[in-house]
Amino acid sequence: MKIDFWYEFASTYSYLSAMRIEDAARAKGVTVQWKPFLLGPIFNSQGWNDSPFNIYPAKGAYMWRDMERQCAAYGLAFSKPDIFPVHSVTAARLAWLGSQADWCPAFSCKVYHAQFAAGLDISDEGVLGNILNDLNLPADDLLAQTQAPETKSGLREQTEAAAANSIFGAPSFLVGTELFWGDDRLDAALEFARTA
Amino acid sequence: MKIDFWYEFASTYSYLSAMRIEDAARAKGVTVQWKPFLLGPIFNSQGWNDSPFNIYPAKGAYMWRDMERQCAAYGLAFSKPDIFPVHSVTAARLAWLGSQADWCPAFSCKVYHAQFAAGLDISDEGVLGNILNDLNLPADDLLAQTQAPETKSGLREQTEAAAANSIFGAPSFLVGTELFWGDDRLDAALEFARTA
Repeated sequence: MKIDFWYEFASTYSYLSAMRIEDAARAKGVTVQWKPFLLGPIFNSQGWNDSPFNIYPAKGAYMWRDMERQCAAYGLAFSKPDIFPVHSVTAARLAWLGSQADWCPAFSCKVYHAQFAAGLDISDEGVLGNILNDLNLPADDLLAQTQAPETKSGLREQTEAAAANSIFGAPSFLVGTELFWGDDRLDAALEFARTA
Repeated sequence: MKIDFWYEFASTYSYLSAMRIEDAARAKGVTVQWKPFLLGPIFNSQGWNDSPFNIYPAKGAYMWRDMERQCAAYGLAFSKPDIFPVHSVTAARLAWLGSQADWCPAFSCKVYHAQFAAGLDISDEGVLGNILNDLNLPADDLLAQTQAPETKSGLREQTEAAAANSIFGAPSFLVGTELFWGDDRLDAALEFARTA
């Protein structure tokens, strides 16, 4: 009755899942563990030093059009960001800190909205600080914590755990060891968790 | 009210769409134009000389498990073929010949079933000949036609048309110039065609 939601802030399709997963999981009586990680090291190990959507232009052009359609279908705002993929490490470290407390889902949804709906640069600490303030969290203290060794190693170990669980893209969903990849598999993953 | 279905015989996810598209399209009043093509030249232009499911092992292992789940969900038989990706050019030339007549859909579904359900090698002209015989088609004559210049150029031009339409994978669906990629987009593509 539990699903692990592995996501990367620079991942467009992770935005779709992040905005839907809590309601969809609740409807099936499934609880969600939010697992921010970095795709960069995983893509590097596959020989990519950029998003595959940039490396393969036809696939990239398709993805942006598909995102417009999928967001319209889900009733989500969408605006193509100026920078892609964004440098997401600070946001991911904050989300990891949030996952050690209780504010990871709310923070993560606001980061996705900022990037893919409001057109903001989520690598900017000012943008991230405003989000933390909106959540009544101590922005300056948390931004300072992103530089602490235990925060850096926490996110690094979570990224290593993603690779160890055979995760190769985002969003991914794990129910025990059963892996589901892509926003298109969210419902199947939740159904698997419900009946597991 | 028309959809172009672009598919490659070596593509696992094309199997899912091939077996579903005619019933699904009929339910929406949409007609289907079957467009066999070869992914090899398109993958080559992206720098790949093998299936990405072989180049990226984690993605490949996931795909086979996902195919098991998707086939179960759709009520389709599935058996992982010994050879992947299969050498599909003769089958594709036959399908192209069928698309110049009226037997392309029936032939293509039998080829997919042979490969992904019955465990047969569809690069084998004996296997293809049996399928043609089952359809009461002149197997020897058609197999000979796969070597004719007009057949070779017909399939080559269709593959070039796929690339010209920004197709980068299979299955793909085109409604006019609107592109949908992947079996997961079949329903959305048909709905787009219905309301176009």
